[in-house]
Amino acid sequence: MAISFELIHECKQTGARYGKLHTPSGTFETPIFMPVGTQGSVKSLSVEEIKSCSEGLILANTYHLWVQPGTDVLKKHNGLKSFMNWDGGLLTDSGGYQVFSLSKNRKISEEGVLFKSHKDGSRLFMSPELSIKIQEIIGADIIMSFDECPPHDADFDYLKKSVDRTLRWAKRGKKEKKSDQALFGIVQGGLNEKLRIYSTKKTIEIGFDGYAIGGLSVGEEKKEMYRVTKLLKNLLPKNKPRYLMGVGSPDDLIENIMNGIDMFDCVYPTRLARHGTALTSKGKLILKSLRYKDDLRPIENDIDEKLIPYSRSYLRHLFKAKELLFSRLVSINNLNYIKNLMYEIRNAIKEDRLYDFYLEMKKNTTYFI
Amino acid sequence: MAISFELIHECKQTGARYGKLHTPSGTFETPIFMPVGTQGSVKSLSVEEIKSCSEGLILANTYHLWVQPGTDVLKKHNGLKSFMNWDGGLLTDSGGYQVFSLSKNRKISEEGVLFKSHKDGSRLFMSPELSIKIQEIIGADIIMSFDECPPHDADFDYLKKSVDRTLRWAKRGKKEKKSDQALFGIVQGGLNEKLRIYSTKKTIEIGFDGYAIGGLSVGEEKKEMYRVTKLLKNLLPKNKPRYLMGVGSPDDLIENIMNGIDMFDCVYPTRLARHGTALTSKGKLILKSLRYKDDLRPIENDIDEKLIPYSRSYLRHLFKAKELLFSRLVSINNLNYIKNLMYEIRNAIKEDRLYDFYLEMKKNTTYFI
Repeated sequence: MAISFELIHECKQTGARYGKLHTPSGTFETPIFMPVGTQGSVKSLSVEEIKSCSEGLILANTYHLWVQPGTDVLKKHNGLKSFMNWDGGLLTDSGGYQVFSLSKNRKISEEGVLFKSHKDGSRLFMSPELSIKIQEIIGADIIMSFDECPPHDADFDYLKKSVDRTLRWAKRGKKEKKSDQALFGIVQGGLNEKLRIYSTKKTIEIGFDGYAIGGLSVGEEKKEMYRVTKLLKNLLPKNKPRYLMGVGSPDDLIENIMNGIDMFDCVYPTRLARHGTALTSKGKLILKSLRYKDDLRPIENDIDEKLIPYSRSYLRHLFKAKELLFSRLVSINNLNYIKNLMYEIRNAIKEDRLYDFYLEMKKNTTYFI
Repeated sequence: MAISFELIHECKQTGARYGKLHTPSGTFETPIFMPVGTQGSVKSLSVEEIKSCSEGLILANTYHLWVQPGTDVLKKHNGLKSFMNWDGGLLTDSGGYQVFSLSKNRKISEEGVLFKSHKDGSRLFMSPELSIKIQEIIGADIIMSFDECPPHDADFDYLKKSVDRTLRWAKRGKKEKKSDQALFGIVQGGLNEKLRIYSTKKTIEIGFDGYAIGGLSVGEEKKEMYRVTKLLKNLLPKNKPRYLMGVGSPDDLIENIMNGIDMFDCVYPTRLARHGTALTSKGKLILKSLRYKDDLRPIENDIDEKLIPYSRSYLRHLFKAKELLFSRLVSINNLNYIKNLMYEIRNAIKEDRLYDFYLEMKKNTTYFI
């Protein structure tokens, strides 16, 4: 295994974990947020910008890279890192999330999942083995088992079948892997406590370098998500990293960190930016709204003037004028906000005051409303 | 007048001019190419990037800024430069080009032009006086007279009337101006030699800080454009800058520089980039094409590896995947190509070898085909 996880401190107020994830691409402090570079690019940002507004560990999507540019091109570049000129850390998902997000265009069988390409309608068959093979070509530091991410309202019978199949797929993937990349298992089971516990225990039995929690942040209520991560808090092995996939917003980050999560990824900060909204220390700033038409202030009065030396009025204008620069500037702002938040959270964990920090955040921001 | 033009050398081979344009925002060597920041942003680029891949003098469009964000917002920021955080040189056009480009949605009268807004269909009336007033609010170093840019196939009677009206508009605008911004007159007259000569003489009679040639690069054949600039070569005053509006491509730049042009603006390098094509020292590289699918080379083998440290294959992937980063990277490449070309052209003028340079360029690039 090519990574190791060092649990350094557990917050006495909350049980939140501070640790270090050692990888071939460097050591990353946890809890960590990973920006998403779906197709080998964190949307609108250069690699220098990604570096400066992240911890240096990003996620890319196996399914999307399989469709475009395809494995031949990636193989020719010796993997995604050299393809996209990224010398930081990299994690790939397995394609399992697309079983959920592209559910209108796929068919699941024991063998794997038949997709109708979202690009050109061609038929693409993904199996647990192929997912690992593709992820070996992409060459991330950490790769994921191929799983099924079911809808949040799936019934028990469906979920049970799906969890068992995902466990069989996890075994097949682990068996297939030839590289020394770290491989994570993914816990499923929807919102059902019994199935979550079952899936967790069985996934741990197979044995992985880390454990991801899948099937959350797919439309369920927030308190349901927190209930599941809380349930798994004392079930997952302490000495392995715990990764909550597809999360999150500032409130979801801290709530789940208090439930012991170490790693997160989400398009939230960059997608929100493209849709006209900035993250600030007080809450969301809907830059596209008319009230900022002639607001001469920067996004944040104190901290952001150097980072984004533009008025809210100018940023709103860029959004209204559909200028590409808007997405870039606000993505940088939003990722920086999350980076700073995670830094503050790690400090609060180390100093056993994360619950105080949480209460302050609830009082001083609008993220929890 | 807030600018002065210093004609330093005329190429003995071609008569091309090397000079210096002194403005309140600094001195710029000519011939110069100005990137276009239509709506207060050179599409996809930050101001730092614009600085590094231009001479520091850019153009913005009065009509577009009038529609969005509007003069109130610009006034509140004390003009476009502080609005967009640009501390370089700035030139604005007058809205006259939109009389051509938005010709389906406007009506010309002696008083001015009634536009139907391309944004929301509202009625907007632009007059020579209002154009100056708006340009005073935008606050560029150099502003333009409001003119009519007629279609290239307009007949003599129409052109004659249009030229006379543009002359009356030029006088009205000059009278209106209260700022110490430099004001350029615009020579019109289509492809008709008599009218071009007439328009030039009459515009010079009114007296401006510089002279622009409008009504070219609007669909006419290239040799027709060159015929007109050649015709005006010995007609325009030597001690004033000559600005060919809306040009251009590498071949158009050098051809018109040999006809005495000092200043150019065009969306060409940035628009071409967004459409998937890079400018190189050999000619256009159509990055989006299949042949670059797994081409590991950078855009240019030698010079661009530091500037754009990506393979053609990765750039093609970004284009195919519709990633915003593509436009930025290739815009930087293309503006840098033009910047370097202009630098080489200025050196060739100073050394009386521009015609040799032109022949080399014809031999070694595909731009003239």
